[in-house]
Amino acid sequence: MTDPAADLVVTNASQVLTMVPASAGEHPGLGIVLEGAVAARAGRVLWVGPASNAGSVPALDSTVWIDARGGVVTPGLIDPHTHAVFAGSRHEEYEARLAGRPYLEILAAGGGILSTVRATRAASDRELVELTRARLDRMLALGVTTAELKSGYGLGVEAELRLLRIAREAGAAHPIRVVTTLLGAHALPDEHRHDRAGYVRLVIDEMIPEAARQGLADACDVYLERAAFSLDEARAILLAARKAGLGTKLHAGQFNDLGGGELAAELGALSADHLEELGDEGLRAMVAAGVVGVLLPGAALSLRGRFPDARRLLDAGLRVALATDCNPGTSHTENLPLMATLAVSQMGMTIDEALVGVTASAARALGLDDAGAIAPGHRADLTVWDVPDFRCLVYHFGVPHAARVIAGGRVVWPS
Amino acid sequence: MTDPAADLVVTNASQVLTMVPASAGEHPGLGIVLEGAVAARAGRVLWVGPASNAGSVPALDSTVWIDARGGVVTPGLIDPHTHAVFAGSRHEEYEARLAGRPYLEILAAGGGILSTVRATRAASDRELVELTRARLDRMLALGVTTAELKSGYGLGVEAELRLLRIAREAGAAHPIRVVTTLLGAHALPDEHRHDRAGYVRLVIDEMIPEAARQGLADACDVYLERAAFSLDEARAILLAARKAGLGTKLHAGQFNDLGGGELAAELGALSADHLEELGDEGLRAMVAAGVVGVLLPGAALSLRGRFPDARRLLDAGLRVALATDCNPGTSHTENLPLMATLAVSQMGMTIDEALVGVTASAARALGLDDAGAIAPGHRADLTVWDVPDFRCLVYHFGVPHAARVIAGGRVVWPS
Repeated sequence: MTDPAADLVVTNASQVLTMVPASAGEHPGLGIVLEGAVAARAGRVLWVGPASNAGSVPALDSTVWIDARGGVVTPGLIDPHTHAVFAGSRHEEYEARLAGRPYLEILAAGGGILSTVRATRAASDRELVELTRARLDRMLALGVTTAELKSGYGLGVEAELRLLRIAREAGAAHPIRVVTTLLGAHALPDEHRHDRAGYVRLVIDEMIPEAARQGLADACDVYLERAAFSLDEARAILLAARKAGLGTKLHAGQFNDLGGGELAAELGALSADHLEELGDEGLRAMVAAGVVGVLLPGAALSLRGRFPDARRLLDAGLRVALATDCNPGTSHTENLPLMATLAVSQMGMTIDEALVGVTASAARALGLDDAGAIAPGHRADLTVWDVPDFRCLVYHFGVPHAARVIAGGRVVWPS
Repeated sequence: MTDPAADLVVTNASQVLTMVPASAGEHPGLGIVLEGAVAARAGRVLWVGPASNAGSVPALDSTVWIDARGGVVTPGLIDPHTHAVFAGSRHEEYEARLAGRPYLEILAAGGGILSTVRATRAASDRELVELTRARLDRMLALGVTTAELKSGYGLGVEAELRLLRIAREAGAAHPIRVVTTLLGAHALPDEHRHDRAGYVRLVIDEMIPEAARQGLADACDVYLERAAFSLDEARAILLAARKAGLGTKLHAGQFNDLGGGELAAELGALSADHLEELGDEGLRAMVAAGVVGVLLPGAALSLRGRFPDARRLLDAGLRVALATDCNPGTSHTENLPLMATLAVSQMGMTIDEALVGVTASAARALGLDDAGAIAPGHRADLTVWDVPDFRCLVYHFGVPHAARVIAGGRVVWPS
């Protein structure tokens, strides 16, 4: 019996960033193979190493050869926090906020998140699937192969399950691997504005068990914030999610530190996201428990607020991922590489840390152990970039650099 | 004799932003025609108005009809400040600066602008034309139809003329209209480091007259800054440029206010660019003289410095344009729409002001009176955007929205 043959080989890369940390050398966190190649079979990585050794990997007549033309190869990027299942546009609200109109006044006038809830509820399934796919298309063209999609604009049992179903359906017909998160506790729906406890019970007693039973959600999230849900409510909801077998995560510290770091640690959550405000206690607890901090530079930019202090978090030992937070209210973008540029220019991260943040650490934030790195057995999700050096992905910003995107061992972009 | 017939009609636009200020209504600065259409003939705009009246414009069997599909039509964007003729990459320097290494130390180690001068001098004409064209391609895909290209990495008479020739050649074979600027006084070349006066004389006595005589430059620029050229040197150079019939402009106030605003006003310059630092005197002088302020958000982002206070400048009555500053040292991007997003989120501009800044005011900064607006007689440079509302061009950021780009009355992108 011989070694399995490769059905896909990417060769002629000036640098392959495996994201498997090396013990020595420059940029050890990136596990760089110079003049590298990657071989895959049946959608999984078979081998990665110097192109000069690629001849040792058996190939077939039918093997697909991809010439990276001296560019850079990384794992397909992973966007671990998006709200990309929605209808409607909030450009008028964005303009009003720029003019200094307070968000609470916008909310009172029927704007804000509840306006997206109305537009999303009013849209047909088909419209929502198409809108979501268009967003996935934009992500793919920017080198992303895995994206988390949250529900959260339904705010009712059937409405939230519907959005999860739409996320699954959009993902099923798309090269991007979609990971779904139930965010029933995103905001208090209008119908329950005088009955918080009743809505939280609905999330716990019906939404979570049904989402789990129907296999619609991979994880459950709560928006912990003064204007949203309390620490006790978040704990109760996430305990129920854990009991139902879902991963847990929460929006924590966007405007106020309400103890989200500590709660994430207590629950063994996958991640706590935002962290513009995070005290030392919460930070230490997250580090000790191995919770990933998912930072969202696009939200800070759009809200003209404080950027999270990534340097402080990293120096304390926190594993940090980056996400677009793609949503119509506070971060309308699908550009994950741009988040890396904002992270290095505004948040004190190094280029290496930012690139780990959109690959290996992003995978960890989603509980995926077969993505975010180029290693035997991992999914063959690879992006070939038309840049001479990996640092150009961050340094040469705002323009698309992906030359080829490979997902599950197949070239999926350009299609 | 009948009215001339249109050879191109763009119709079915939810909004046409003519950029011809209206006397009333919402967003008067944008001159919006709702449910609009544009007709062109022989590369010039013939008519713009409500689509329902487009039937009054004579058409031919050969007329090209473009369906904007409910999207937005604007003048093709204009990038009025780029250094896009260069070879080499400075990603290592970018990384070193992120790590806190001072720019002066980088310069002393052979990095900084002089490293780009070395790489550019060493590159062949053909390489430089191809690199420049690739940058123009990226601009075009983002909706740009006019770009200024500066020389400035030659720093010798023949070397600077060569870069202007390359800019012209790259533009001649490209749909983007290229406007060239001689920036011989970008930095003091190594060869003259003990002879500043000699280099300034070279610029005045040889570079400017030759560039003008050969028709290679539309304008002349000087980098006025402590680490570059003084106020007196800038004045002498720009007076010579004016005498030679070139437009004048200068880099002013990036790090220090050395009186660039006052000088630009005194000379009747087209623009003063950067303006992170600009005193009230200089500001008032620019306003009175009608000098355009060209702001460069990408440089502030990349240098992690102070963003220019556009609000203050606009409130004083200054006409403000935005540019990418595309260059390998301090703003490596071709994404002009992203500059508009940075301007509203970090510099206090409104969406309307930002869009005027990348069209009508950018044209003014280049001395063009037939671009930056959709009006009869103007060049038919139009971008059709796949967004439901013009505000989405800024609000939905970091992703390409151009659906069709028309330059000189022809659809040039996608090609």
